[in-house]
Amino acid sequence: MAAPVFNTNTDSMPPNPDLQKERENASFNVKELTHILDGGPEKTRRRKELEKLILSDPAFSSKDLLYLNRSEEYENAALRSVRLVEWSKKYQWSEEDFATAAQQINNSAEAITLHKDMFIPALERLTSEEQKAKWLPLALNYKIIGTYAQTELGHGTNLRNLETTATFDPSTDEFVLNTPKITSMKWWPGSLGKSSNHAVVLAQLIINGKGYGLQPFMVQLRSLEDHMPLPGISLGVIGPKMAVNYNDNGFLILSKVRIPRENMLMGNAMVTRDGQFKQLKSDKSNYSTMMYVRVLITRWSYGVLAASAMTAIRYSAVRRQLYIDPKGGEVQILDYQTQQYKLFPAVATAFAMFFTSQKMLADYYRVLPSLIKGDKELLAEYHSLTSALKAICSDYATDHIDVLRKSLGGHGFMMSAAIPRFMLSALTLVTVEGDNTVLYQQTARYLLKQVALAASQGKLTGSASYLGQNLDNVRQIETPEDCRDIHLLLQVYQKMSQRILIRAGGLLQADLMEGKPEYEAWIKHQVTLVNAAKAFSLMHLVRCNVEALDELRQSASSELVLVLHRLCCLFALYYLDLNSGMFMQVGAISPDQLDTIKAVEMQLLSEIRPDAVALADSPDIPDECHKSVLGCYDGNVYERMYAAALADPMNKTQVHPSYHKYLRGITKSISSKL
Amino acid sequence: MAAPVFNTNTDSMPPNPDLQKERENASFNVKELTHILDGGPEKTRRRKELEKLILSDPAFSSKDLLYLNRSEEYENAALRSVRLVEWSKKYQWSEEDFATAAQQINNSAEAITLHKDMFIPALERLTSEEQKAKWLPLALNYKIIGTYAQTELGHGTNLRNLETTATFDPSTDEFVLNTPKITSMKWWPGSLGKSSNHAVVLAQLIINGKGYGLQPFMVQLRSLEDHMPLPGISLGVIGPKMAVNYNDNGFLILSKVRIPRENMLMGNAMVTRDGQFKQLKSDKSNYSTMMYVRVLITRWSYGVLAASAMTAIRYSAVRRQLYIDPKGGEVQILDYQTQQYKLFPAVATAFAMFFTSQKMLADYYRVLPSLIKGDKELLAEYHSLTSALKAICSDYATDHIDVLRKSLGGHGFMMSAAIPRFMLSALTLVTVEGDNTVLYQQTARYLLKQVALAASQGKLTGSASYLGQNLDNVRQIETPEDCRDIHLLLQVYQKMSQRILIRAGGLLQADLMEGKPEYEAWIKHQVTLVNAAKAFSLMHLVRCNVEALDELRQSASSELVLVLHRLCCLFALYYLDLNSGMFMQVGAISPDQLDTIKAVEMQLLSEIRPDAVALADSPDIPDECHKSVLGCYDGNVYERMYAAALADPMNKTQVHPSYHKYLRGITKSISSKL
Repeated sequence: MAAPVFNTNTDSMPPNPDLQKERENASFNVKELTHILDGGPEKTRRRKELEKLILSDPAFSSKDLLYLNRSEEYENAALRSVRLVEWSKKYQWSEEDFATAAQQINNSAEAITLHKDMFIPALERLTSEEQKAKWLPLALNYKIIGTYAQTELGHGTNLRNLETTATFDPSTDEFVLNTPKITSMKWWPGSLGKSSNHAVVLAQLIINGKGYGLQPFMVQLRSLEDHMPLPGISLGVIGPKMAVNYNDNGFLILSKVRIPRENMLMGNAMVTRDGQFKQLKSDKSNYSTMMYVRVLITRWSYGVLAASAMTAIRYSAVRRQLYIDPKGGEVQILDYQTQQYKLFPAVATAFAMFFTSQKMLADYYRVLPSLIKGDKELLAEYHSLTSALKAICSDYATDHIDVLRKSLGGHGFMMSAAIPRFMLSALTLVTVEGDNTVLYQQTARYLLKQVALAASQGKLTGSASYLGQNLDNVRQIETPEDCRDIHLLLQVYQKMSQRILIRAGGLLQADLMEGKPEYEAWIKHQVTLVNAAKAFSLMHLVRCNVEALDELRQSASSELVLVLHRLCCLFALYYLDLNSGMFMQVGAISPDQLDTIKAVEMQLLSEIRPDAVALADSPDIPDECHKSVLGCYDGNVYERMYAAALADPMNKTQVHPSYHKYLRGITKSISSKL
Repeated sequence: MAAPVFNTNTDSMPPNPDLQKERENASFNVKELTHILDGGPEKTRRRKELEKLILSDPAFSSKDLLYLNRSEEYENAALRSVRLVEWSKKYQWSEEDFATAAQQINNSAEAITLHKDMFIPALERLTSEEQKAKWLPLALNYKIIGTYAQTELGHGTNLRNLETTATFDPSTDEFVLNTPKITSMKWWPGSLGKSSNHAVVLAQLIINGKGYGLQPFMVQLRSLEDHMPLPGISLGVIGPKMAVNYNDNGFLILSKVRIPRENMLMGNAMVTRDGQFKQLKSDKSNYSTMMYVRVLITRWSYGVLAASAMTAIRYSAVRRQLYIDPKGGEVQILDYQTQQYKLFPAVATAFAMFFTSQKMLADYYRVLPSLIKGDKELLAEYHSLTSALKAICSDYATDHIDVLRKSLGGHGFMMSAAIPRFMLSALTLVTVEGDNTVLYQQTARYLLKQVALAASQGKLTGSASYLGQNLDNVRQIETPEDCRDIHLLLQVYQKMSQRILIRAGGLLQADLMEGKPEYEAWIKHQVTLVNAAKAFSLMHLVRCNVEALDELRQSASSELVLVLHRLCCLFALYYLDLNSGMFMQVGAISPDQLDTIKAVEMQLLSEIRPDAVALADSPDIPDECHKSVLGCYDGNVYERMYAAALADPMNKTQVHPSYHKYLRGITKSISSKL
């Protein structure tokens, strides 16, 4: 390929003047917000330190990642995994350091993420003390690399019906692990196809022909000498996916594989030498890890949405197109109300998710000791809350990122824009760790119990306590000022959510009174129940945002509080507007209030406008990690797009090799000039 | 890789019994519906004939397409293009044959689509008779391969500000085409980077320093001898995209490239030897092609949504998971109301789009002669209608496909499921041929004029005539029967749309009365105006669906009409429910009606349930074209998933080559058995 016709050396270029002006005109100090997002100035410093280390290594610079095939992507991910492990040993990283570092390399594009995320936690939670002493050091020192093999081809959501069997053979004191039919093969576990040499395999325990439910077993998959699969083990990758192709999500077929009895993870239950099954602890204690991962997903939803907003807002400040005043020049597309309506609710949602995930994480650590002790009420409440939040945050993240991507026009379709990658990685959050529709129903079940409890006892505690309050006298939204009263907005949300739940409960009740079995009534109102859980989840996002703002008022600058207050109002009003029918149906607002609500919503867009770029900047993701030609910090987007195109291997030759094979044939027999 | 552990030979397997039972229990004859979708039994026959021909050629069987890199994908697309051209010559295909054939090969994965879709139509519309005689035969016989180069890196929506220049040089009787700066390079045109040797280039005509606006020029890009770019021409592909990577979307930089004066396309305007510019015809006549493409997009939106629904419904009939009755067995996920609520509105929307695109296409051909003659009123109406329909159909298709994909759980994330491919290809429809937000505003502008006209004249004609009617006395929806009265539902939609538009007009008017310039008032209410246009577009979808059903009542069987009537009701009620706040705001429904509406909506889901698979079958896409392991006709999905995984090149070796390079390093120094 010839030299570029236009200069693409962005290092020697001044930044885009529009973007510079935006930054100068921001009403608050971006660093203050960055510190809040990092968890304090010291954590910001540490993050930047780790970023610097990571970016110093060619394994992570990966300019050409776009052109790797899947096998090369996997290889690169393996290299990254190894590098992180080496560093963590060399520099004696804390767990938090490791997580921070992994976060910076963009969607943790590693090969053996399941080792740390699932395998080691399983060894910590599910083993006996003796097993812990034996396996944990091996795993922590990467002497063995493992994954967690639960989901099967035919069963994901319905764990109880997983089909892999582990049959006790008393004659040899072994378990025989088997995949009885095609639907029973393990399917999807990350790091399974190529990377792991061990797995915790979930299987139906059978002793003397009797089933004892799902139990975890340590199974060696591959030789530690040459990494070849051991006898009876068939495994591989499951094939290309929409995204996350750097990970070797795999399948596993066990053909009567024998393992010692001691390889059953015996922390919660055990099998004795003579084939006696003993339940030692409730297996509910496992739930805490599941909750933890769901809290993390709310955090990741924030992260990928914030990264997408960074791209979309910066580009919208740089891109000029069409006119507002026909006599003026072309305007920044950030100035169009329709564009603001695509961008700013996404930013408001990102912050609402951030504050919610912060609160959820703090709550999690606060209640964890009680959960482990077996506090059933708290377990039920946090199971319901984390399910709801995982579902709504992943749903909202994907919805907003889709809108953000479309807001960039054709250029948002380019892989070099990075936002397609953010979109695809957000899509994984919707499906992993529980189907959202199933999760919402679990939350609905818990909330309806609380509604019933409130009716019989009058008073509730915890996150559902508002269901026991009399909210009939909540003031109506009347004036524009009311639309900016976040405590009033929260009350309106609570009134709506309470009434929607009571209504859903009433529908169920009416069917039960008619003699319908409960399951039939449930299925008849399934959509209503899911919607009621969604309404609760939305209310909870508003609540966490309002509470966070009340706290920030004590510590943050008034300029920043003002900006975050606007975002909080916009979040509440945007979703109120979007779901206005639901609010009206239960009388939480009336149809004539909608004009005022919409007017303030639009007013907020124009108030947020001057701070949009500063808000987008606040997560402080360096270009080298963000990797978006449209979302770069200096705004020289067109030069970067051109440079990225020139780097395409298809541009290495002027004539594509296939020309001679195909196209030439249909055009031949004509002279070179018309 | 070893032999499969489980049988994957689906040819010798009986079909999935659940799916078979679904087909037996359908209430209508699928073939009748297939004929309607094809346009009659004779067209079904012809389609199948062409399908058979295509599938007989290895270029189109493409089992391993998933594993091609982009360069190989492009090469395959070039081969397909050539094959279609050869066949069309050999078998003397009609235009319709060609389109049908291209449709079957799934998203027309060809390299030179722009040649037929844009280059030839441009030559037909924009040239003088002399030019037509010279260039058309060359293009029609593929002696030259062309594309249409309009969009630039810095300008897509704002055509008037395109920056490429064509300066007349009277001394040589030539135009000098030039790309003055980086933002001016042509960027995005399909088939540009590698395939085309000619392009119609849109450039700013300059004569004697004076601008004469955008004009089209025929520019040779590559040698017809060796396909090398001609001097002064720099071109290549723009880099990887989210999808459509088989096409060589390209960039083009023109460095003072000289072309003869006769190479300006002189159908609408001309430049004489002495540099006189003459406008011959209004350039509005170009609009008809734009409208045609927009109608096609409504049709493609239907196609890709129907293909996605085929996948999702068939798999939902095969997949069993969890229980409704806890004492019963696992149920087909198609039996969950929440699943039905994801699937059936998508089907209803697909049919509404189909009927609408049918009507739009018939209307287009009916009014085309008047459009060409320059009927300005009709032009404005059809410009508004086609803009609105392109926008709403592409928006709804992507929204529904996203829901359908998620409804398949993790397996919907597999590329072998095909639905990710459908989703990505639907996303292109949102962005091409006009940004939807811009299109909605064009429609809003037209409709507000009609509102004003109705206020002054009282009576309107055409698709906006309902705006002139008194709809105050439209009956309220009260009973469940009212919810199934499609003519009443249409009236409620029209009442809503009329009032929303009048309201939006009122907001604008109030600002104008206060002395605001029109553009300022517009930008202040931009979101409201876009929403008003969306409301109209939705109403028009309902209207076309209702009208189609009224016609079908004359010709179709009563069984089929009953099923299509249910879908029509569901479509209307689903979107009424989703937008209920908007209907309530203007009093088209009241909050207390929502219970009835929701109840009937749920009732319709269970009525559609027995016909779901038959409806999914009706587009009659053979497996070989559909290429979805989850959506296959016989329902042997798990065997196909396993077979697809085994075909992954990463499974050719048991140990990935990178193991020795990376992972081994961190695991070494341990014996082979724990």
